Amino acid sequence: MDLPTTRIRLDIAYDGSAFRGWARQPGLRTVQGHLEAALATIFHRHPPAPMLTVAGRTDAGVHALGQVAHLDLTDDQLASITRRAGGGSVAALATRINGIAGLDADVYVRKAALAAAGFDARFSALSRSYVYRVADSSAPRNPLERRHTLWYPRELDVSAMDAAARSIAGLHDWAAYCKAREGATTVRTLHQFSWERQSDGILVARVTADAFCHGMVRSLVGASIAVGEGKLAADALVGLRDARERTSAFKVAPAKGLVLTEVRYPQAAELSIRALQTRARRDPVE
Amino acid sequence: MDLPTTRIRLDIAYDGSAFRGWARQPGLRTVQGHLEAALATIFHRHPPAPMLTVAGRTDAGVHALGQVAHLDLTDDQLASITRRAGGGSVAALATRINGIAGLDADVYVRKAALAAAGFDARFSALSRSYVYRVADSSAPRNPLERRHTLWYPRELDVSAMDAAARSIAGLHDWAAYCKAREGATTVRTLHQFSWERQSDGILVARVTADAFCHGMVRSLVGASIAVGEGKLAADALVGLRDARERTSAFKVAPAKGLVLTEVRYPQAAELSIRALQTRARRDPVE
Repeated sequence: MDLPTTRIRLDIAYDGSAFRGWARQPGLRTVQGHLEAALATIFHRHPPAPMLTVAGRTDAGVHALGQVAHLDLTDDQLASITRRAGGGSVAALATRINGIAGLDADVYVRKAALAAAGFDARFSALSRSYVYRVADSSAPRNPLERRHTLWYPRELDVSAMDAAARSIAGLHDWAAYCKAREGATTVRTLHQFSWERQSDGILVARVTADAFCHGMVRSLVGASIAVGEGKLAADALVGLRDARERTSAFKVAPAKGLVLTEVRYPQAAELSIRALQTRARRDPVE
Repeated sequence: MDLPTTRIRLDIAYDGSAFRGWARQPGLRTVQGHLEAALATIFHRHPPAPMLTVAGRTDAGVHALGQVAHLDLTDDQLASITRRAGGGSVAALATRINGIAGLDADVYVRKAALAAAGFDARFSALSRSYVYRVADSSAPRNPLERRHTLWYPRELDVSAMDAAARSIAGLHDWAAYCKAREGATTVRTLHQFSWERQSDGILVARVTADAFCHGMVRSLVGASIAVGEGKLAADALVGLRDARERTSAFKVAPAKGLVLTEVRYPQAAELSIRALQTRARRDPVE
Protein backbone atom coordinates (compact mmCIF):
# COMPACT_ATOMS: atom_id res chain seq x y z
CA MET A 1 0.00 0.00 0.00
CA ASP A 2 1.50 3.31 -1.09
CA LEU A 3 -0.89 5.76 0.55
CA PRO A 4 0.49 7.70 3.51
CA THR A 5 -0.90 6.18 6.69
CA THR A 6 -1.23 6.92 10.38
CA ARG A 7 -0.54 4.15 12.88
CA ILE A 8 -3.10 3.49 15.63
CA ARG A 9 -2.50 1.45 18.76
CA LEU A 10 -5.36 -0.64 20.16
CA ASP A 11 -5.45 -1.99 23.72
CA ILE A 12 -7.67 -5.05 23.77
CA ALA A 13 -9.22 -7.40 26.34
CA TYR A 14 -10.97 -10.68 25.59
CA ASP A 15 -12.45 -13.80 27.07
CA GLY A 16 -10.78 -16.43 24.88
CA SER A 17 -13.26 -19.22 25.72
CA ALA A 18 -15.25 -18.94 22.51
CA PHE A 19 -12.38 -17.94 20.19
CA ARG A 20 -10.06 -20.22 18.24
CA GLY A 21 -7.18 -18.01 19.34
CA TRP A 22 -5.97 -14.64 18.08
CA ALA A 23 -4.81 -15.42 14.55
CA ARG A 24 -7.27 -15.16 11.66
CA GLN A 25 -8.27 -18.58 10.24
CA PRO A 26 -10.79 -19.09 7.45
CA GLY A 27 -14.15 -20.26 8.78
CA LEU A 28 -13.15 -20.09 12.46
CA ARG A 29 -14.09 -17.49 15.05
CA THR A 30 -10.84 -15.77 16.07
CA VAL A 31 -10.14 -12.47 17.84
CA GLN A 32 -8.24 -11.05 14.88
CA GLY A 33 -10.94 -12.18 12.45
CA HIS A 34 -13.64 -10.67 14.65
CA LEU A 35 -11.90 -7.29 15.00
CA GLU A 36 -10.85 -7.08 11.35
CA ALA A 37 -14.44 -7.79 10.30
CA ALA A 38 -15.53 -4.87 12.49
CA LEU A 39 -12.85 -2.66 10.89
CA ALA A 40 -13.95 -3.72 7.40
CA THR A 41 -17.52 -2.70 8.29
CA ILE A 42 -16.44 0.65 9.75
CA PHE A 43 -14.29 1.50 6.70
CA HIS A 44 -16.40 -0.11 3.97
CA ARG A 45 -16.55 3.23 2.12
CA HIS A 46 -12.83 3.83 2.55
CA PRO A 47 -10.90 0.74 1.45
CA PRO A 48 -8.57 -1.02 1.94
CA ALA A 49 -9.82 -2.70 5.12
CA PRO A 50 -7.12 -2.34 7.82
CA MET A 51 -5.19 -5.38 9.05
CA LEU A 52 -4.00 -5.90 12.62
CA THR A 53 -0.50 -6.66 13.87
CA VAL A 54 -0.50 -8.05 17.40
CA ALA A 55 1.96 -8.25 20.29
CA GLY A 56 1.02 -11.76 21.46
CA ARG A 57 -0.66 -14.32 19.21
CA THR A 58 -2.63 -16.20 21.84
CA ASP A 59 -3.75 -19.80 21.32
CA ALA A 60 -7.34 -21.05 21.30
CA GLY A 61 -8.92 -20.54 24.73
CA VAL A 62 -6.26 -18.16 26.07
CA HIS A 63 -7.56 -14.85 27.46
CA ALA A 64 -6.14 -11.33 27.41
CA LEU A 65 -6.59 -8.20 29.47
CA GLY A 66 -3.55 -6.31 28.13
CA GLN A 67 -3.28 -7.34 24.49
CA VAL A 68 -1.86 -4.69 22.13
CA ALA A 69 -2.24 -4.45 18.34
CA HIS A 70 -1.65 -1.79 15.71
CA LEU A 71 -3.26 -0.87 12.40
CA ASP A 72 -2.49 1.75 9.77
CA LEU A 73 -5.22 4.12 8.59
CA THR A 74 -5.20 6.15 5.38
CA ASP A 75 -5.95 9.85 5.66
CA ASP A 76 -9.47 9.19 4.40
CA GLN A 77 -10.02 6.50 7.02
CA LEU A 78 -8.61 8.67 9.78
CA ALA A 79 -10.78 11.61 8.74
CA SER A 80 -13.89 9.41 8.68
CA ILE A 81 -13.30 8.54 12.33
CA THR A 82 -12.30 11.94 13.66
CA ARG A 83 -15.03 13.74 11.70
CA ARG A 84 -17.71 11.59 13.27
CA ALA A 85 -16.18 12.07 16.68
CA GLY A 86 -16.57 15.83 16.32
CA GLY A 87 -13.62 16.72 18.50
CA GLY A 88 -11.28 14.87 16.19
CA SER A 89 -10.02 12.04 18.41
CA VAL A 90 -9.09 8.58 17.17
CA ALA A 91 -10.31 7.29 20.56
CA ALA A 92 -13.69 7.12 18.83
CA LEU A 93 -12.43 4.11 16.87
CA ALA A 94 -12.66 2.00 20.05
CA THR A 95 -16.27 3.08 20.55
CA ARG A 96 -17.06 2.21 16.92
CA ILE A 97 -15.53 -1.26 17.16
CA ASN A 98 -17.20 -1.97 20.51
CA GLY A 99 -20.49 -0.70 19.11
CA ILE A 100 -20.38 -3.37 16.41
CA ALA A 101 -19.42 -6.12 18.83
CA GLY A 102 -22.01 -5.07 21.41
CA LEU A 103 -21.39 -3.91 24.95
CA ASP A 104 -21.41 -7.36 26.50
CA ALA A 105 -19.21 -9.02 23.90
CA ASP A 106 -16.33 -11.32 24.82
CA VAL A 107 -13.85 -8.91 23.18
CA TYR A 108 -13.51 -5.26 24.11
CA VAL A 109 -11.23 -2.54 22.78
CA ARG A 110 -10.19 -0.60 25.87
CA LYS A 111 -8.39 2.18 24.03
CA ALA A 112 -7.51 3.45 20.56
CA ALA A 113 -4.78 6.08 20.30
CA LEU A 114 -2.27 7.53 17.85
CA ALA A 115 0.87 5.41 18.06
CA ALA A 116 4.21 7.07 18.77
CA ALA A 117 6.54 7.34 15.77
CA GLY A 118 8.20 4.00 15.09
CA PHE A 119 5.74 2.01 17.18
CA ASP A 120 5.18 -1.60 16.15
CA ALA A 121 2.88 -3.64 18.42
CA ARG A 122 4.91 -6.77 17.80
CA PHE A 123 8.50 -5.73 17.22
CA SER A 124 8.68 -2.78 19.64
CA ALA A 125 7.54 -4.85 22.62
CA LEU A 126 10.06 -5.19 25.44
CA SER A 127 8.20 -7.92 27.29
CA ARG A 128 4.98 -9.90 27.57
CA SER A 129 3.44 -10.86 30.93
CA TYR A 130 0.95 -13.62 31.64
CA VAL A 131 -0.83 -14.95 34.69
CA TYR A 132 -2.04 -18.53 35.08
CA ARG A 133 -4.74 -19.38 37.64
CA VAL A 134 -5.22 -22.77 39.31
CA ALA A 135 -7.83 -23.75 41.90
CA ASP A 136 -6.43 -26.90 43.54
CA SER A 137 -8.45 -29.15 45.84
CA SER A 138 -7.79 -26.89 48.85
CA ALA A 139 -9.05 -23.73 47.10
CA PRO A 140 -12.73 -22.75 47.24
CA ARG A 141 -14.04 -23.12 43.73
CA ASN A 142 -15.77 -20.09 42.27
CA PRO A 143 -18.11 -20.89 39.35
CA LEU A 144 -17.95 -17.20 38.33
CA GLU A 145 -14.25 -17.68 37.57
CA ARG A 146 -14.41 -21.15 36.04
CA ARG A 147 -13.73 -19.95 32.48
CA HIS A 148 -10.32 -18.56 33.36
CA THR A 149 -9.24 -20.89 36.15
CA LEU A 150 -7.93 -24.46 35.91
CA TRP A 151 -9.67 -26.68 38.46
CA TYR A 152 -7.14 -29.20 39.67
CA PRO A 153 -8.45 -32.16 41.66
CA ARG A 154 -5.44 -32.57 43.99
CA GLU A 155 -3.66 -30.33 46.48
CA LEU A 156 -0.56 -28.55 45.18
CA ASP A 157 2.51 -27.48 47.17
CA VAL A 158 2.83 -23.83 46.20
CA SER A 159 6.18 -23.33 47.98
CA ALA A 160 7.80 -26.07 45.92
CA MET A 161 6.24 -24.66 42.75
CA ASP A 162 7.46 -21.16 43.52
CA ALA A 163 10.99 -22.37 44.30
CA ALA A 164 11.12 -24.36 41.06
CA ALA A 165 9.75 -21.42 39.06
CA ARG A 166 12.23 -18.91 40.45
CA SER A 167 15.17 -21.23 39.80
CA ILE A 168 14.55 -21.42 36.08
CA ALA A 169 14.53 -17.76 34.92
CA GLY A 170 17.13 -16.07 32.75
CA LEU A 171 18.48 -16.12 29.18
CA HIS A 172 18.31 -19.73 27.97
CA ASP A 173 17.35 -22.02 25.16
CA TRP A 174 13.77 -23.11 25.97
CA ALA A 175 13.48 -25.88 23.37
CA ALA A 176 12.31 -28.31 26.08
CA TYR A 177 9.36 -26.01 26.85
CA CYS A 178 8.43 -25.03 23.27
CA LYS A 179 6.49 -26.62 20.47
CA ALA A 180 9.01 -27.00 17.67
CA ARG A 181 8.75 -24.68 14.68
CA GLU A 182 11.00 -25.18 11.70
CA GLY A 183 13.95 -22.78 11.68
CA ALA A 184 12.74 -20.84 14.73
CA THR A 185 15.09 -20.07 17.59
CA THR A 186 13.90 -21.01 21.08
CA VAL A 187 16.27 -18.69 22.93
CA ARG A 188 14.39 -16.25 25.17
CA THR A 189 14.94 -14.28 28.35
CA LEU A 190 12.52 -15.32 31.09
CA HIS A 191 12.45 -12.23 33.34
CA GLN A 192 10.10 -13.51 36.02
CA PHE A 193 8.38 -16.75 36.96
CA SER A 194 6.77 -17.13 40.38
CA TRP A 195 3.83 -18.81 42.12
CA GLU A 196 1.77 -17.66 45.08
CA ARG A 197 -1.49 -18.61 46.75
CA GLN A 198 -3.75 -15.55 46.80
CA SER A 199 -5.89 -14.65 49.79
CA ASP A 200 -8.90 -16.21 47.98
CA GLY A 201 -7.05 -19.56 47.85
CA ILE A 202 -6.31 -19.51 44.11
CA LEU A 203 -2.76 -20.34 42.96
CA VAL A 204 -1.44 -17.71 40.56
CA ALA A 205 1.68 -17.91 38.40
CA ARG A 206 3.21 -14.67 37.09
CA VAL A 207 5.39 -15.09 34.02
CA THR A 208 7.24 -12.38 32.10
CA ALA A 209 9.70 -12.78 29.21
CA ASP A 210 11.01 -10.66 26.35
CA ALA A 211 8.92 -13.00 24.21
CA PHE A 212 7.65 -16.56 24.45
CA CYS A 213 8.07 -19.38 21.99
CA HIS A 214 4.97 -21.40 21.14
CA GLY A 215 3.46 -23.24 24.11
CA MET A 216 6.15 -22.00 26.50
CA VAL A 217 4.01 -20.50 29.27
CA ARG A 218 1.69 -23.50 29.41
CA SER A 219 4.67 -25.89 29.46
CA LEU A 220 6.30 -23.97 32.31
CA VAL A 221 2.99 -24.05 34.20
CA GLY A 222 2.51 -27.77 33.50
CA ALA A 223 6.02 -28.55 34.74
CA SER A 224 5.51 -26.62 37.96
CA ILE A 225 2.16 -28.33 38.58
CA ALA A 226 4.06 -31.65 38.35
CA VAL A 227 6.42 -30.26 41.01
CA GLY A 228 3.48 -29.14 43.14
CA GLU A 229 2.06 -32.63 43.02
CA GLY A 230 5.38 -34.24 43.93
CA LYS A 231 5.78 -35.93 40.55
CA LEU A 232 8.88 -33.90 39.71
CA ALA A 233 11.62 -32.63 42.05
CA ALA A 234 11.87 -28.82 42.29
CA ASP A 235 15.28 -28.85 40.58
CA ALA A 236 14.06 -31.03 37.72
CA LEU A 237 12.79 -28.00 35.77
CA VAL A 238 16.30 -26.65 35.27
CA GLY A 239 17.58 -30.09 34.27
CA LEU A 240 14.82 -30.53 31.71
CA ARG A 241 15.47 -27.04 30.37
CA ASP A 242 19.17 -27.70 29.92
CA ALA A 243 18.50 -31.02 28.16
CA ARG A 244 16.79 -28.87 25.48
CA GLU A 245 14.51 -31.69 24.34
CA ARG A 246 10.75 -32.07 24.59
CA THR A 247 9.79 -34.46 27.38
CA SER A 248 6.79 -36.37 28.67
CA ALA A 249 7.77 -35.64 32.29
CA PHE A 250 4.95 -33.10 32.53
CA LYS A 251 1.78 -32.13 30.70
CA VAL A 252 1.24 -28.81 28.96
CA ALA A 253 -1.35 -26.96 31.08
CA PRO A 254 -4.77 -26.25 29.51
CA ALA A 255 -5.31 -22.90 27.78
CA LYS A 256 -8.23 -21.79 29.92
CA GLY A 257 -6.15 -20.72 32.97
CA LEU A 258 -3.91 -18.41 30.94
CA VAL A 259 -4.35 -14.62 30.65
CA LEU A 260 -2.06 -12.21 28.78
CA THR A 261 -1.97 -9.31 31.22
CA GLU A 262 0.55 -6.79 29.91
CA VAL A 263 2.83 -5.91 27.01
CA ARG A 264 5.54 -3.38 27.81
CA TYR A 265 7.11 -0.96 25.33
CA PRO A 266 10.06 1.41 25.59
CA GLN A 267 9.73 5.18 25.82
CA ALA A 268 8.69 6.79 22.53
CA ALA A 269 12.22 7.93 21.62
CA GLU A 270 13.52 4.35 21.65
CA LEU A 271 10.66 2.66 19.81
CA SER A 272 12.16 2.53 16.33
CA ILE A 273 15.50 1.32 17.62
CA ARG A 274 13.84 -1.47 19.57
CA ALA A 275 11.84 -2.59 16.55
CA LEU A 276 14.95 -2.72 14.36
CA GLN A 277 16.86 -4.69 16.99
CA THR A 278 14.06 -7.21 17.40
CA ARG A 279 13.54 -7.75 13.70
CA ALA A 280 17.26 -8.32 13.18
CA ARG A 281 17.60 -10.74 16.06
CA ARG A 282 14.48 -12.80 16.15
CA ASP A 283 12.58 -15.10 13.89
CA PRO A 284 8.85 -14.65 13.41
CA VAL A 285 7.80 -16.78 16.39
CA GLU A 286 6.65 -14.78 19.39
CA MET B 1 -42.47 -38.05 56.14
CA ASP B 2 -42.38 -40.09 59.33
CA LEU B 3 -38.96 -41.69 59.03
CA PRO B 4 -36.27 -40.36 61.38
CA THR B 5 -33.95 -38.11 59.40
CA THR B 6 -30.59 -36.39 59.68
CA ARG B 7 -30.24 -32.80 58.54
CA ILE B 8 -27.39 -31.92 56.17
CA ARG B 9 -26.17 -28.41 55.40
CA LEU B 10 -24.94 -27.63 51.88
CA ASP B 11 -22.78 -24.60 51.02
CA ILE B 12 -23.32 -23.78 47.37
CA ALA B 13 -21.82 -21.48 44.73
CA TYR B 14 -23.26 -20.79 41.29
CA ASP B 15 -23.03 -18.66 38.20
CA GLY B 16 -26.66 -17.64 37.81
CA SER B 17 -26.35 -16.60 34.13
CA ALA B 18 -27.89 -19.75 32.71
CA PHE B 19 -30.39 -20.45 35.54
CA ARG B 20 -33.93 -19.15 35.88
CA GLY B 21 -33.18 -18.43 39.53
CA TRP B 22 -33.05 -20.70 42.56
CA ALA B 23 -36.64 -21.88 42.91
CA ARG B 24 -37.78 -25.04 41.13
CA GLN B 25 -40.11 -24.33 38.17
CA PRO B 26 -41.51 -26.98 35.84
CA GLY B 27 -39.66 -27.05 32.51
CA LEU B 28 -37.13 -24.36 33.47
CA ARG B 29 -33.48 -24.77 34.43
CA THR B 30 -33.18 -23.62 38.04
CA VAL B 31 -30.51 -24.18 40.68
CA GLN B 32 -32.90 -25.99 43.02
CA GLY B 33 -34.21 -28.11 40.16
CA HIS B 34 -30.69 -28.98 39.06
CA LEU B 35 -29.50 -29.98 42.55
CA GLU B 36 -32.66 -31.89 43.44
CA ALA B 37 -32.37 -33.83 40.17
CA ALA B 38 -28.81 -34.77 41.20
CA LEU B 39 -30.08 -35.84 44.65
CA ALA B 40 -32.86 -37.91 43.06
CA THR B 41 -30.23 -39.69 40.95
CA ILE B 42 -27.92 -40.31 43.92
CA PHE B 43 -30.76 -41.70 46.09
CA HIS B 44 -32.81 -43.42 43.39
CA ARG B 45 -32.60 -46.70 45.33
CA HIS B 46 -33.47 -45.02 48.63
CA PRO B 47 -36.59 -42.89 48.15
CA PRO B 48 -37.98 -40.38 48.86
CA ALA B 49 -35.82 -37.94 46.88
CA PRO B 50 -34.64 -35.19 49.26
CA MET B 51 -35.91 -31.64 48.86
CA LEU B 52 -33.87 -28.52 49.52
CA THR B 53 -34.69 -25.58 51.79
CA VAL B 54 -32.62 -22.51 50.98
CA ALA B 55 -31.45 -19.37 52.79
CA GLY B 56 -31.85 -16.95 49.87
CA ARG B 57 -34.18 -17.62 46.92
CA THR B 58 -32.20 -15.76 44.25
CA ASP B 59 -33.92 -14.44 41.10
CA ALA B 60 -33.06 -15.40 37.51
CA GLY B 61 -29.51 -14.32 36.66
CA VAL B 62 -28.41 -13.67 40.26
CA HIS B 63 -25.21 -15.43 41.35
CA ALA B 64 -24.12 -16.93 44.68
CA LEU B 65 -20.84 -17.75 46.33
CA GLY B 66 -22.19 -18.29 49.84
CA GLN B 67 -25.63 -19.82 49.37
CA VAL B 68 -26.77 -22.25 52.09
CA ALA B 69 -29.43 -24.95 51.89
CA HIS B 70 -30.45 -27.94 53.97
CA LEU B 71 -31.93 -31.36 53.26
CA ASP B 72 -33.03 -34.24 55.45
CA LEU B 73 -31.70 -37.74 54.82
CA THR B 74 -33.25 -40.98 56.04
CA ASP B 75 -30.95 -43.44 57.78
CA ASP B 76 -30.84 -45.52 54.61
CA GLN B 77 -29.84 -42.51 52.54
CA LEU B 78 -27.24 -41.41 55.04
CA ALA B 79 -25.76 -44.90 55.19
CA SER B 80 -25.59 -45.09 51.40
CA ILE B 81 -23.40 -41.97 51.35
CA THR B 82 -21.15 -42.75 54.28
CA ARG B 83 -20.71 -46.41 53.25
CA ARG B 84 -19.43 -45.37 49.84
CA ALA B 85 -17.17 -42.78 51.40
CA GLY B 86 -15.52 -45.52 53.47
CA GLY B 87 -14.61 -43.27 56.36
CA GLY B 88 -18.24 -42.45 57.00
CA SER B 89 -18.32 -38.74 56.20
CA VAL B 90 -21.32 -36.93 54.74
CA ALA B 91 -18.81 -34.61 53.03
CA ALA B 92 -18.86 -37.23 50.27
CA LEU B 93 -22.35 -36.01 49.33
CA ALA B 94 -20.79 -32.84 47.87
CA THR B 95 -18.43 -34.92 45.76
CA ARG B 96 -21.34 -37.06 44.54
CA ILE B 97 -23.45 -34.05 43.55
CA ASN B 98 -20.52 -32.31 41.84
CA GLY B 99 -19.65 -35.52 40.05
CA ILE B 100 -23.08 -35.56 38.44
CA ALA B 101 -22.91 -31.88 37.49
CA GLY B 102 -19.37 -32.15 36.18
CA LEU B 103 -16.30 -30.33 37.45
CA ASP B 104 -16.75 -27.27 35.27
CA ALA B 105 -20.45 -26.83 35.90
CA ASP B 106 -22.01 -23.48 36.72
CA VAL B 107 -23.12 -24.78 40.11
CA TYR B 108 -20.79 -26.27 42.68
CA VAL B 109 -21.44 -27.66 46.17
CA ARG B 110 -18.52 -26.39 48.25
CA LYS B 111 -19.34 -28.37 51.35
CA ALA B 112 -21.77 -30.91 52.79
CA ALA B 113 -21.83 -31.36 56.56
CA LEU B 114 -24.05 -32.58 59.40
CA ALA B 115 -26.17 -29.63 60.50
CA ALA B 116 -26.18 -28.60 64.15
CA ALA B 117 -29.31 -29.53 66.09
CA GLY B 118 -32.14 -27.13 65.27
CA PHE B 119 -30.47 -25.77 62.13
CA ASP B 120 -32.78 -24.49 59.41
CA ALA B 121 -31.06 -22.91 56.38
CA ARG B 122 -33.88 -20.43 55.98
CA PHE B 123 -35.28 -19.72 59.40
CA SER B 124 -32.06 -19.89 61.45
CA ALA B 125 -30.27 -17.30 59.32
CA LEU B 126 -29.28 -14.10 61.09
CA SER B 127 -28.40 -12.17 57.96
CA ARG B 128 -27.83 -12.34 54.21
CA SER B 129 -25.05 -10.37 52.46
CA TYR B 130 -24.81 -9.44 48.79
CA VAL B 131 -22.36 -7.55 46.63
CA TYR B 132 -23.29 -5.73 43.44
CA ARG B 133 -20.61 -4.91 40.84
CA VAL B 134 -20.75 -2.02 38.35
CA ALA B 135 -18.16 -1.03 35.75
CA ASP B 136 -18.97 2.58 34.88
CA SER B 137 -17.45 4.42 31.92
CA SER B 138 -14.29 5.25 33.90
CA ALA B 139 -13.60 1.62 34.89
CA PRO B 140 -11.53 -0.65 32.64
CA ARG B 141 -13.92 -3.29 31.35
CA ASN B 142 -12.91 -6.88 31.88
CA PRO B 143 -14.61 -9.36 29.52
CA LEU B 144 -13.69 -12.17 31.95
CA GLU B 145 -16.01 -10.57 34.52
CA ARG B 146 -18.80 -9.49 32.19
CA ARG B 147 -21.26 -12.13 33.40
CA HIS B 148 -21.29 -10.79 36.95
CA THR B 149 -20.68 -7.08 36.38
CA LEU B 150 -23.12 -4.44 35.14
CA TRP B 151 -21.50 -2.32 32.42
CA TYR B 152 -22.80 1.20 32.81
CA PRO B 153 -22.14 3.63 29.96
CA ARG B 154 -21.74 6.79 32.09
CA GLU B 155 -19.46 7.82 34.92
CA LEU B 156 -20.87 7.44 38.43
CA ASP B 157 -20.07 9.52 41.52
CA VAL B 158 -19.20 6.84 44.06
CA SER B 159 -18.93 9.27 46.99
CA ALA B 160 -22.50 10.42 46.48
CA MET B 161 -23.65 6.81 46.11
CA ASP B 162 -21.87 5.76 49.30
CA ALA B 163 -23.28 8.70 51.29
CA ALA B 164 -26.80 7.93 50.07
CA ALA B 165 -26.39 4.23 50.82
CA ARG B 166 -25.10 4.75 54.35
CA SER B 167 -27.92 7.18 55.18
CA ILE B 168 -30.65 4.64 54.51
CA ALA B 169 -29.78 1.70 56.77
CA GLY B 170 -31.70 0.55 59.83
CA LEU B 171 -35.04 -1.02 60.77
CA HIS B 172 -37.64 0.34 58.38
CA ASP B 173 -40.55 -0.50 56.15
CA TRP B 174 -38.99 -1.04 52.69
CA ALA B 175 -42.23 -1.13 50.67
CA ALA B 176 -40.81 1.50 48.26
CA TYR B 177 -37.93 -0.86 47.45
CA CYS B 178 -39.86 -4.15 47.30
CA LYS B 179 -42.01 -5.87 44.75
CA ALA B 180 -45.40 -6.18 46.40
CA ARG B 181 -46.50 -9.61 47.59
CA GLU B 182 -49.98 -10.08 48.99
CA GLY B 183 -50.01 -10.11 52.76
CA ALA B 184 -46.25 -9.97 53.12
CA THR B 185 -44.57 -7.53 55.47
CA THR B 186 -41.82 -5.34 54.02
CA VAL B 187 -40.25 -4.44 57.37
CA ARG B 188 -36.58 -5.43 57.47
CA THR B 189 -33.36 -4.37 59.19
CA LEU B 190 -30.75 -3.19 56.70
CA HIS B 191 -27.50 -3.68 58.63
CA GLN B 192 -25.08 -2.35 56.04
CA PHE B 193 -25.22 -0.62 52.67
CA SER B 194 -22.10 1.01 51.23
CA TRP B 195 -20.34 1.70 47.92
CA GLU B 196 -16.66 1.87 47.08
CA ARG B 197 -14.50 1.93 43.98
CA GLN B 198 -12.07 -1.00 44.14
CA SER B 199 -8.43 -0.70 43.09
CA ASP B 200 -9.39 -2.32 39.75
CA GLY B 201 -11.84 0.54 39.08
CA ILE B 202 -15.01 -1.50 39.65
CA LEU B 203 -17.75 -0.02 41.86
CA VAL B 204 -18.88 -2.49 44.50
CA ALA B 205 -21.92 -2.24 46.77
CA ARG B 206 -22.01 -4.29 49.96
CA VAL B 207 -25.49 -4.92 51.37
CA THR B 208 -26.42 -6.87 54.48
CA ALA B 209 -29.85 -7.27 56.07
CA ASP B 210 -31.58 -9.71 58.39
CA ALA B 211 -33.51 -10.66 55.26
CA PHE B 212 -34.55 -8.95 52.03
CA CYS B 213 -37.98 -8.58 50.55
CA HIS B 214 -38.37 -9.37 46.86
CA GLY B 215 -36.32 -7.11 44.56
CA MET B 216 -34.98 -5.06 47.49
CA VAL B 217 -31.23 -5.27 46.81
CA ARG B 218 -31.60 -4.47 43.11
CA SER B 219 -33.94 -1.56 43.93
CA LEU B 220 -31.45 -0.14 46.45
CA VAL B 221 -28.68 -0.49 43.86
CA GLY B 222 -30.80 1.10 41.13
CA ALA B 223 -31.67 4.05 43.38
CA SER B 224 -28.02 4.65 44.24
CA ILE B 225 -26.99 4.48 40.57
CA ALA B 226 -29.55 7.27 39.97
CA VAL B 227 -27.79 9.23 42.70
CA GLY B 228 -24.38 8.48 41.17
CA GLU B 229 -25.58 9.86 37.84
CA GLY B 230 -27.00 13.00 39.45
CA LYS B 231 -30.61 12.07 38.63
CA LEU B 232 -31.54 11.81 42.29
CA ALA B 233 -30.23 13.82 45.25
CA ALA B 234 -28.34 11.78 47.85
CA ASP B 235 -31.03 12.38 50.46
CA ALA B 236 -33.82 11.30 48.09
CA LEU B 237 -33.35 7.63 48.99
CA VAL B 238 -34.51 8.18 52.56
CA GLY B 239 -37.45 10.27 51.35
CA LEU B 240 -38.54 7.59 48.92
CA ARG B 241 -38.17 4.94 51.60
CA ASP B 242 -40.33 6.86 54.05
CA ALA B 243 -43.02 7.45 51.40
CA ARG B 244 -43.37 3.63 51.41
CA GLU B 245 -44.71 3.52 47.83
CA ARG B 246 -43.19 2.10 44.66
CA THR B 247 -41.77 4.85 42.47
CA SER B 248 -40.47 5.38 38.94
CA ALA B 249 -37.70 7.69 40.23
CA PHE B 250 -35.13 4.92 39.63
CA LYS B 251 -34.80 1.64 37.76
CA VAL B 252 -34.34 -1.74 39.41
CA ALA B 253 -30.75 -2.78 38.60
CA PRO B 254 -30.23 -5.85 36.37
CA ALA B 255 -29.74 -9.24 38.04
CA LYS B 256 -26.34 -9.97 36.51
CA GLY B 257 -24.30 -7.71 38.84
CA LEU B 258 -25.69 -9.32 42.00
CA VAL B 259 -23.92 -12.02 44.04
CA LEU B 260 -25.14 -13.56 47.31
CA THR B 261 -21.88 -13.74 49.24
CA GLU B 262 -22.72 -14.88 52.76
CA VAL B 263 -25.45 -16.16 55.05
CA ARG B 264 -24.73 -15.90 58.75
CA TYR B 265 -26.11 -18.18 61.44
CA PRO B 266 -25.98 -18.05 65.24
CA GLN B 267 -23.84 -20.37 67.33
CA ALA B 268 -25.17 -23.92 67.49
CA ALA B 269 -26.77 -23.47 70.92
CA GLU B 270 -29.00 -20.64 69.70
CA LEU B 271 -30.09 -22.16 66.40
CA SER B 272 -33.47 -23.54 67.41
CA ILE B 273 -34.41 -20.38 69.27
CA ARG B 274 -33.58 -18.23 66.25
CA ALA B 275 -35.64 -20.41 63.94
CA LEU B 276 -38.67 -20.22 66.25
CA GLN B 277 -38.36 -16.44 66.53
CA THR B 278 -38.10 -15.99 62.75
CA ARG B 279 -41.04 -18.24 61.96
CA ALA B 280 -43.23 -16.43 64.48
CA ARG B 281 -42.28 -12.96 63.27
CA ARG B 282 -41.94 -13.18 59.54
CA ASP B 283 -44.04 -14.11 56.55
CA PRO B 284 -42.68 -16.49 53.90
CA VAL B 285 -40.97 -13.83 51.80
CA GLU B 286 -37.20 -13.67 52.23
